[in-house]
Amino acid sequence: MSGSAKPDNRQKGLVSREQRESLNAQRGQVLWLTGLSGAGKSTLAYALEARLYQLGRRCVVLDGDNLRSGLCADLGFTPAARHENLRRAAEVAKLFAETGMICIAAFISPTYLDRAMVREVVGPDDFSEVYLDCSLQVCEARDVKGLYQRARAGEIADFTGITSPYEPPLQPALTLMTSSLSIEDCVQQLIECLG
Amino acid sequence: MSGSAKPDNRQKGLVSREQRESLNAQRGQVLWLTGLSGAGKSTLAYALEARLYQLGRRCVVLDGDNLRSGLCADLGFTPAARHENLRRAAEVAKLFAETGMICIAAFISPTYLDRAMVREVVGPDDFSEVYLDCSLQVCEARDVKGLYQRARAGEIADFTGITSPYEPPLQPALTLMTSSLSIEDCVQQLIECLG
Repeated sequence: MSGSAKPDNRQKGLVSREQRESLNAQRGQVLWLTGLSGAGKSTLAYALEARLYQLGRRCVVLDGDNLRSGLCADLGFTPAARHENLRRAAEVAKLFAETGMICIAAFISPTYLDRAMVREVVGPDDFSEVYLDCSLQVCEARDVKGLYQRARAGEIADFTGITSPYEPPLQPALTLMTSSLSIEDCVQQLIECLG
Repeated sequence: MSGSAKPDNRQKGLVSREQRESLNAQRGQVLWLTGLSGAGKSTLAYALEARLYQLGRRCVVLDGDNLRSGLCADLGFTPAARHENLRRAAEVAKLFAETGMICIAAFISPTYLDRAMVREVVGPDDFSEVYLDCSLQVCEARDVKGLYQRARAGEIADFTGITSPYEPPLQPALTLMTSSLSIEDCVQQLIECLG
């Protein structure tokens, strides 16, 4: 891939990643939560973040809401714009991981290619893919944001699960059946996944 | 400005900014270093970061080199692309400040409008503008990256200080005369500026 061939101009820092991680007493890394809209990505991301803070660990949540209101406010929802949204999310996640933080990224990221790209950007050693496995039926019944209803009414183009595909991860680091597990159980498994 | 009118969908977090800052025992904020190419922005940014780490504080440096090799790798150097580069830098700086980190941003950011925009994005309460005041003569004599020579040869369009203007800040939080002060003196003043 081109990633490793890019010139790395980022060698000027005087503080090593190891020093940053030592100060924070944790390993910088990215937990990437993928799944359908309504599968519980943001809910779990924020619940995990709260639990990690109780444990004195430093983390940050990136999701569509906080990126699309700022860094990605210029992007729409075409396939190309969605891809760029994920690329920027991955680049920011990488910056956080490099400073010794745990970055919890919550994005539908529906395709193999999307997730291969974000893994490549972050770097595979720092990247753990977590699949929030929840049936379309359950997600659509929840419809917290009313998006499924709008998608069924034809008001949203390319809505994942309805009019565009979701490709479940083939080898995720962790799969969570969010329709049957409690939030607490999910958070516990995520913490074990962090190592 | 439109910033305050934008819907803020980022209220889902369970960890407050105060909790993050308390855990880090510091205030999240952005120090924005502006000045000509060769004025010492990245050098000072990394020297400050190293000193802050010795003091147990959490920080991150954002500069053209680490953003343009990743998040902004899709951007060229037209005025519009440069503006977008700064906008993204400011959005990322804001994300770091919100997690309770000290973000040291080192960008030429030559115009009043550029810097008004980044201040607006970050939020004025978290933003300190630092002007690295160094004459064009000194910067051009240093020419660490050989850019001034290339600009004089006409190989670089719109090179700040040569073929496009640098507008010095009118009311910076701090001005550092980098041609006469030592790095250590500058770092000390920057630490005092952080408060």
